[in-house]
Amino acid sequence: MSKGLPKRSEDYSLWYNELVKKADLAENSPVRGCMVIKPYGFSIWEKMQAEIDRMFKETGHVNAYFPLFIPKSYLSKEADHVEGFAKECAVVTHYRLMNDPDGKGVVVDPDAKLEEELIVRPTSETVIWNTYKNWVQSYRDLPLLINQWANVVRWEMRTRLFLRTAEFLWQEGHTAHATKQEAIDESVQMMNVYAEFAENFMAMPVVKGMKSESERFAGAVETYCIEALMQDGKALQAGTSHFLGQNFAKAFDVKFTNKEGVQDFVWGTSWGVSTRLIGALIMAHSDDQGLVLPPKLAPIQVVIVPIYKGEEQLQTISDKVAELTKGLKAKGISVKFDNRDTYKPGFKFAEWELKGVPVRLAIGPKDLENNSVEIARRDTGEKELFSLENSLADKVEALLEEIQNSIYQKAFNFRAENTTEVDTYDDFKKVIDGQGGFVSAHWDGTTETEDKIKTETKATIRCIPLDRKEEAGVCIYSGKPSAGRVLFAKAY
Amino acid sequence: MSKGLPKRSEDYSLWYNELVKKADLAENSPVRGCMVIKPYGFSIWEKMQAEIDRMFKETGHVNAYFPLFIPKSYLSKEADHVEGFAKECAVVTHYRLMNDPDGKGVVVDPDAKLEEELIVRPTSETVIWNTYKNWVQSYRDLPLLINQWANVVRWEMRTRLFLRTAEFLWQEGHTAHATKQEAIDESVQMMNVYAEFAENFMAMPVVKGMKSESERFAGAVETYCIEALMQDGKALQAGTSHFLGQNFAKAFDVKFTNKEGVQDFVWGTSWGVSTRLIGALIMAHSDDQGLVLPPKLAPIQVVIVPIYKGEEQLQTISDKVAELTKGLKAKGISVKFDNRDTYKPGFKFAEWELKGVPVRLAIGPKDLENNSVEIARRDTGEKELFSLENSLADKVEALLEEIQNSIYQKAFNFRAENTTEVDTYDDFKKVIDGQGGFVSAHWDGTTETEDKIKTETKATIRCIPLDRKEEAGVCIYSGKPSAGRVLFAKAY
Repeated sequence: MSKGLPKRSEDYSLWYNELVKKADLAENSPVRGCMVIKPYGFSIWEKMQAEIDRMFKETGHVNAYFPLFIPKSYLSKEADHVEGFAKECAVVTHYRLMNDPDGKGVVVDPDAKLEEELIVRPTSETVIWNTYKNWVQSYRDLPLLINQWANVVRWEMRTRLFLRTAEFLWQEGHTAHATKQEAIDESVQMMNVYAEFAENFMAMPVVKGMKSESERFAGAVETYCIEALMQDGKALQAGTSHFLGQNFAKAFDVKFTNKEGVQDFVWGTSWGVSTRLIGALIMAHSDDQGLVLPPKLAPIQVVIVPIYKGEEQLQTISDKVAELTKGLKAKGISVKFDNRDTYKPGFKFAEWELKGVPVRLAIGPKDLENNSVEIARRDTGEKELFSLENSLADKVEALLEEIQNSIYQKAFNFRAENTTEVDTYDDFKKVIDGQGGFVSAHWDGTTETEDKIKTETKATIRCIPLDRKEEAGVCIYSGKPSAGRVLFAKAY
Repeated sequence: MSKGLPKRSEDYSLWYNELVKKADLAENSPVRGCMVIKPYGFSIWEKMQAEIDRMFKETGHVNAYFPLFIPKSYLSKEADHVEGFAKECAVVTHYRLMNDPDGKGVVVDPDAKLEEELIVRPTSETVIWNTYKNWVQSYRDLPLLINQWANVVRWEMRTRLFLRTAEFLWQEGHTAHATKQEAIDESVQMMNVYAEFAENFMAMPVVKGMKSESERFAGAVETYCIEALMQDGKALQAGTSHFLGQNFAKAFDVKFTNKEGVQDFVWGTSWGVSTRLIGALIMAHSDDQGLVLPPKLAPIQVVIVPIYKGEEQLQTISDKVAELTKGLKAKGISVKFDNRDTYKPGFKFAEWELKGVPVRLAIGPKDLENNSVEIARRDTGEKELFSLENSLADKVEALLEEIQNSIYQKAFNFRAENTTEVDTYDDFKKVIDGQGGFVSAHWDGTTETEDKIKTETKATIRCIPLDRKEEAGVCIYSGKPSAGRVLFAKAY
C-alpha cells in the first residue's frame, strides 16, 4: 500500500493496470491472454451478476447452458459471422495426451485426432440456433427467451485485464420470435436493461444508440449499444444488443408455422455484457488513491477500523462494534470489522481506500467516551464526527444512497463537460487530439467517410444516439448532407 | 406426454434417458459428449448452486475464477495427476481459422500453431497451485479458502446425460493451509457440507467415507466421499473432498514461512460436486410417471390448474387464484398458474407430474361454489379436498415440509433394505448379482484383492465408511485379517 499508485494525469494506462493488481481485483495468468479474477474482483462480478440476472428474470428470461465447443463447420454457415470470428478462434484438434517417447512429460497423441476440429465458443449464436431448430415448430413454441452465463474465448493479440482478454466471462442472451417487430422490441428492451443497470447500479451514465454498419456485430442486422465515457476521455462500449433479423434462422434452417398456417423463418436477437464491465466501473470512478466503488456494487459497504492500545481497549471497542454492526446488518448493509492485530490503523485506512469501500468508520477510546464514531466517505474524503445519540444505521443508509447518487452525478458532469459539438473537420481533429471525449458531429452515413476519419484520427463512430434530434447538416468530412449528429470518440 | 415413459422395472437405463429428455431437463448436443442443459434442468442447477454457494460462504470460503486453459507442461508436474487425466484431455493446438483454399468453409490456419499446446481444464489443481505460489509467502497469507464455479472437460468415450458428459459444470474448491491437521479438517468439513446438502436439500441419504487407494483422486493422499444408492441398486458417488497433503505444493514449489520462521510446503485440499448431482436427484426419487423433486430444490413448488368452460369461468377462477397465490408467495412458496388455453386439464396434470412439481392444486366451478380446492401431492399421488375456510398457505407450507421429509425417508428405507452384510464370497456374489445395493463385507485392505473382486463381479469398494465399527474379521476373498467392513456396490 505504501508504494502508492501512479497518478492518472501522468500515466492513465499504468494507473489502471497497477490499480487492478494492487486492489486485488485480477492478475495476468501464465496462460497467454487469460486472467485470474481474484476473490475481491470476483465478488464485484457476483454482485453485478445477481442484479443483471434478476433484471433478466423480471423481463421473462430463463437461463440454460449450451456446449463450450462448436464444430468448425457451424461457423461457416453464416457468412458475416465466420468473417468476424474465424481469425481469433482457439481450435481443439486432439482429445488425448500420451507419454513423451523421449521420457519428458506428455505430448499430444497423434492417434487421437478429431475428425472435425472444434472451436472454443467465441459467442454461441451458431450452436444455439442449431439447437433451436429442434425446439421450434409452431408459433406456440415462440418466443424463446433464453440466457446463458458462460466463459468465451477470443484469441486477442493485445490484451488488458478485464477490458480485453482471451478468455472472459459474460452472459449471452439468445431469443427467437415470431415477428420482426417483436424481435426489434426485444433488442431495444435489453439495451434498456443494460442502460438501467449501468446507470442505477454502476453509477455510470451511458448513451444509448445504434452502431454504424462497420461497427455492427458479425451477423446482425442492427446493433444497439450503450457507450460510456472514461476519465481519460476515451469511450467504452459497455453492452450490446443485436437484432439478428432472420440471418441465423436461415443459416440453421429454423422455421415455424405461424397462426395462419404459413411457414416462415424465425426472427432473432442476441445481447451480452461481460467482465469488461468491471474495467468500466474502475475507470469511470476511481482516483489516484484507488478504487471508488458505488455502494450498490461494493462487496463491502462499510469497514470499521478500531483504534486501540492493548487487548482490553480492543475488547471494549469490539463490544461496541458488535452492537453497531447488528444495526447496520439489519438494514442489509454489508460490514467488515477489520480487527487484524498485525496491521496499524493507518495501513488499514490506506488499504480500504485502495479497495474502494464507500464508508469507513473509526472508533477509538475517545469515541467510546463521547459516544461517537468517525465517519469517512471514500468518494469525497470528507470526515465527520457522528454522535451515537442518533441512529448510525439510518445515517449510513442515507449516506450510501448519497454516495451512489453523487458518484453518478460526478460522472454525468464529467461526460457533459467532455461532449463537444463540432461542425468542421478542423475542430473535430482539435478536440479529438486535445481534450478527447465524445464529439458530436454530422456524418454522411457512408462507411467510406467513417473509415477515412478513423484512419486519420483514430476516432470511431461510437453510436448513432437514439435520442438525437432531427437536424439537417453537412458531413464534417465530405460536406455531403447528413440527417443528424453521431457520436465520435477514441475508444477502448 | 401421452406417449409415457418406459417402466423402471423393465429398462431402468432407458427410463432415465427418456425421463431426462421428456421432462425438458437436458438433451445431447451434436457436439460429441456435450449436453445442452435446458431451462427447466438448469433451474434445478441454479437452486442447487444457490444453496451450496451459501454453505461455502458460511464456512468462510470466497469465489474466484482461474483460466480455462492449462499449459500442457503443468499437467506433468504432479506424477499421479498426469497419469489420471492425460488420457481424456481436449487439446488446443491452434488459434486461428482461415478460408479453405478450396473455397469450402474454413480450415485450421497452419501458421497459427501454438508454441505449447493448451489443454482445456479437466480440473484446476495445476493452474491454481501455480498461481498460489505467488500468493503465499508467510503463514499470514494462509489459509486460502477459494472456490470456483466453472465448466470442465474430460473426453469420456461413453457418455450419459448429467451422469457422465465430456463437458460438465461444477464447483471446485482449492484450499491451502499451514498445517496438515488444518487441511485434513478442511477436507472432512467439506465432505460434511456435501452430505448436509445431499440429505437436507436433495432428500438423498448418503454414506460418508474414505476411498480405497485405487479409487482415490489422482494426486490426493486421501479422498473423502459421499455415496448414494440409486433405485436400481447401483451406487453413485455424489461428491468428493481430497486431502492433497503437500503433493501440489511440492509440484509447484509453494512454500511459506511459519510462525517459527521456518520454511515449509503448504498443505492442500480440493473438493467438488457437479451437474452429476442432477442425475443423482432424478434417479434417487423419480417414478414411472416422471420426476419426483424434493420441494427445497423444485423450481416450481406448486402448480395451479384451472378447470373451466369458457372465458367467464376462467376469469372467476383467475381472480380466486390471484388471491391464493398472493398468500403462498408471501411464504416464499414458488407458484405457477397454468392458464394456457391450448391444453386440457388432463394434459396439464400429466405434464406437471412428469416435471415433478411437488404439489398440484386444481380449481373448478364446483370448488368456487364450495370454497374449496383439490390438493394433490406428487410423491404419493394422494388427493384431498381442502376447505378454504382454513389457510391454504399454512397447509401447503406444512405439506411441502412433509413431502421433503417423506421423500427422504423413502430413500432412507430403500437404502436400509438394500444394504446387506455378507461374510462369504459366495453370498457376496449372490447379492451383487441379485438385488444389488450396498454390500458390507470384510476386506483385507489390498488393491490386489479389490481388483480381483472388481474383475469377477464388477463391484467396487464405494467407501470405507467413517462410522464403521471396529470389528475384527476375515476378508471374504482372501481370508486374510480385516479390521472392519467396507461398502461394495456396482456403481455409476
